[in-house]
Amino acid sequence: MAIALNATHDPAARSWVPSANTDGTDFPLQNLPLAVFRRQTADEAFRGGAAIGDQVLDLAALAASGLLQGDAQAACLACAQPALNDYMAMGSGAWRALRHGLFALLHGDAAAAVQQQVRSCLVPQAEVEYGLHARIGDYTDFYTSIHHALNVGRLIFPDNPLTPNFQWLPIAYHGRASSVRVGQAGFGFRRPMGQAMPPGARQPAYGPCARLDFELEMGFYIGPGNGLGEPVPLDAAEDHIVGMVLLNDWSARDHQFWEMNPLGPFLGKNFCTTVSPWLVGMEALAPFRVPFTRPAADPQPLAYLDGRANREHGGVDVQLEVRLDTPRHHARGLEPSRIAATSFRHQYWTPAQMLAQHTVGGCNLQPGDLLGTGTVSGPTPQEAGAIVELSKGGREPIVLQGTGEPRTFLEDGDTVILRGWCEAPGRECIGFGECRGTVLPARG
Amino acid sequence: MAIALNATHDPAARSWVPSANTDGTDFPLQNLPLAVFRRQTADEAFRGGAAIGDQVLDLAALAASGLLQGDAQAACLACAQPALNDYMAMGSGAWRALRHGLFALLHGDAAAAVQQQVRSCLVPQAEVEYGLHARIGDYTDFYTSIHHALNVGRLIFPDNPLTPNFQWLPIAYHGRASSVRVGQAGFGFRRPMGQAMPPGARQPAYGPCARLDFELEMGFYIGPGNGLGEPVPLDAAEDHIVGMVLLNDWSARDHQFWEMNPLGPFLGKNFCTTVSPWLVGMEALAPFRVPFTRPAADPQPLAYLDGRANREHGGVDVQLEVRLDTPRHHARGLEPSRIAATSFRHQYWTPAQMLAQHTVGGCNLQPGDLLGTGTVSGPTPQEAGAIVELSKGGREPIVLQGTGEPRTFLEDGDTVILRGWCEAPGRECIGFGECRGTVLPARG
Repeated sequence: MAIALNATHDPAARSWVPSANTDGTDFPLQNLPLAVFRRQTADEAFRGGAAIGDQVLDLAALAASGLLQGDAQAACLACAQPALNDYMAMGSGAWRALRHGLFALLHGDAAAAVQQQVRSCLVPQAEVEYGLHARIGDYTDFYTSIHHALNVGRLIFPDNPLTPNFQWLPIAYHGRASSVRVGQAGFGFRRPMGQAMPPGARQPAYGPCARLDFELEMGFYIGPGNGLGEPVPLDAAEDHIVGMVLLNDWSARDHQFWEMNPLGPFLGKNFCTTVSPWLVGMEALAPFRVPFTRPAADPQPLAYLDGRANREHGGVDVQLEVRLDTPRHHARGLEPSRIAATSFRHQYWTPAQMLAQHTVGGCNLQPGDLLGTGTVSGPTPQEAGAIVELSKGGREPIVLQGTGEPRTFLEDGDTVILRGWCEAPGRECIGFGECRGTVLPARG
Repeated sequence: MAIALNATHDPAARSWVPSANTDGTDFPLQNLPLAVFRRQTADEAFRGGAAIGDQVLDLAALAASGLLQGDAQAACLACAQPALNDYMAMGSGAWRALRHGLFALLHGDAAAAVQQQVRSCLVPQAEVEYGLHARIGDYTDFYTSIHHALNVGRLIFPDNPLTPNFQWLPIAYHGRASSVRVGQAGFGFRRPMGQAMPPGARQPAYGPCARLDFELEMGFYIGPGNGLGEPVPLDAAEDHIVGMVLLNDWSARDHQFWEMNPLGPFLGKNFCTTVSPWLVGMEALAPFRVPFTRPAADPQPLAYLDGRANREHGGVDVQLEVRLDTPRHHARGLEPSRIAATSFRHQYWTPAQMLAQHTVGGCNLQPGDLLGTGTVSGPTPQEAGAIVELSKGGREPIVLQGTGEPRTFLEDGDTVILRGWCEAPGRECIGFGECRGTVLPARG
């Protein structure tokens, strides 16, 4: 299950692309995440690209150049398409071949003639727009942060906030694939209309969502997948994970809480879900894997959810933060306010456990399927990954640093920015970039 | 919203295909449902077909024949593909044109030369296998039978069986699109493995589902659909419904009841969902539309879920029955035992209301999306559409007529057969055919 560290993780490696070597870049040579992109101003097709510094390496152009060979070239050709499903279906051998091939081409030691050819395949990130990584067949959202479950549970059942199943299996529900979008600069969605039961009312009312929220999550895309009736065992689960993205599970809390008993969230979640443009491969994350641990007093996983590799390095230590950018920030020229920060290592279940649970009954996963991890909230109050937690269900407004604005829930014009990155002693820091989206007024 | 009755509904119309005129056929000239099919024995592509008597009219062959013109030919060409998404996207004008074109070609009055050409496009239903109607982007399952909700609710909360939202909105959850299959002769799926909390146990156990169930449902496919953030109003909803199928929402009750609090069903439902091979168009159902009624003492729908057309003929009177076929039936040469029968007219919400609710928050529906209606249970105990209701949660086994076998839940080797048809005074009866599937033993 583990991906061994290798030359592509060497913290001393440098690229001939200068912006890849600057402090604070999300995209050094050790990262090489993939996106689907096209130039904003040109009438051209979406295709795959790899991030290097502030550039996108156009994989369609690279495939045409003939600089790569064998498995790396085959993978690069699959990435020349407007969706990466075929690349995802090829499996970890292809993913590895492409990463190592790109690493060699972009390394400072590459021959001058190679550098010249590759340079002609670079497009500045500032000039592109992004598309979805894949045609998403099915989108599933898990619920694997015990801190989030406790924070939300306490709002409704103060004495018994955690359902009895939470510690025994990674809970999940099916989400809506059609409304997944890329969360990039300029993206906005309308505040949803819907039905809610106002506090103290005797009958529900129809109107714009009054308790609009974000959820800080991560997501991962499925690779080869499995046939119907053929579960993926825990130890093979990561063979089916292409890589990870940031994910914002926008939520209409008033609609959700009214509708969700007994069958779960529906309209409260399906009006929009956003993912970050950049998909970071599991091999890039290898230096940041951490043990899956659980307090000894807690229930330990049943055998089908337990394994040595998962215990030793099933977790991923991704630093995460949420910033809020309001019209007042713009008016005053202020930076977005940070409202939460935590790490993905606090999750109660690992990606491999989520995938094994998803398939244990025989459900088939297909290349390009998206699995969300559920809200990532850490153990302290400032680490909560949703505003309903930060504002204690809307009872205690948060106050934005800089503008001093109070917020219980999101207001029209608010932009939520998720960021994620990995850092470890002696390792080059790699980032996920941003996942951002703006709340537009409800349809009039 | 209503489709006016026209010549294609004339009960006196007869086809030159003799089997279309026999008593008891599901597929007279007035029906003309669509499927995706291929010959079982030949290495050939799936394509669309229309049922007439015991034959399939091959729409790829018909499109090549040049017998249809204009919109009908364009629709027929779209049906020559291995999935009907493009046909569904064309909208009701195209659906109508194809129906009326096929009706004329198959009518007893068709010219002899036409009959001869069309005859060469017929394939016996006994020789074909069926594929899915569409690449299903998203599958949603509703929960719109108040009798089902009460039956199930009473098992868990005898004093308060109905959640407060049930009468105010059509409740739904997102289902799993990847595991939808055609329920046809020879189709089986493995009993799912999973986690459940055995009665009286202190910790959950992993094992094969011990409470396997069917759910008698109907489903409908989406036509043109809507953009993200652009709700479909109630009065326009049926413009986006291609037609209806039978649907079996196979359910692992022990897994489901353990996992579903708080986010709804997941593994309990996603191991397999089956639909009938034949998709009956909304125009064929026009003579069987019935008023949407609700007891005056019940809450009446909010304005966005209420409209005159929906009140006058939003319902559909489809007769439904469930039969069970066990290995003992085969051994003794007995017909399958009927275990339930009801009508779709008892649903508490109409298809149009389901679609309007689905989109009210801005969720986008796409051509080929599938919406299930939820279990169809009628007002009396024999009208329950799931075995968990018929057997009172497994406490009172049903006894199969003929074999005398008791059943609390489904056993390995059991085949569930759903059937549906419409009948009304002075109208030709039309049918949905069957939706069938067999329970195979759990993976060893």
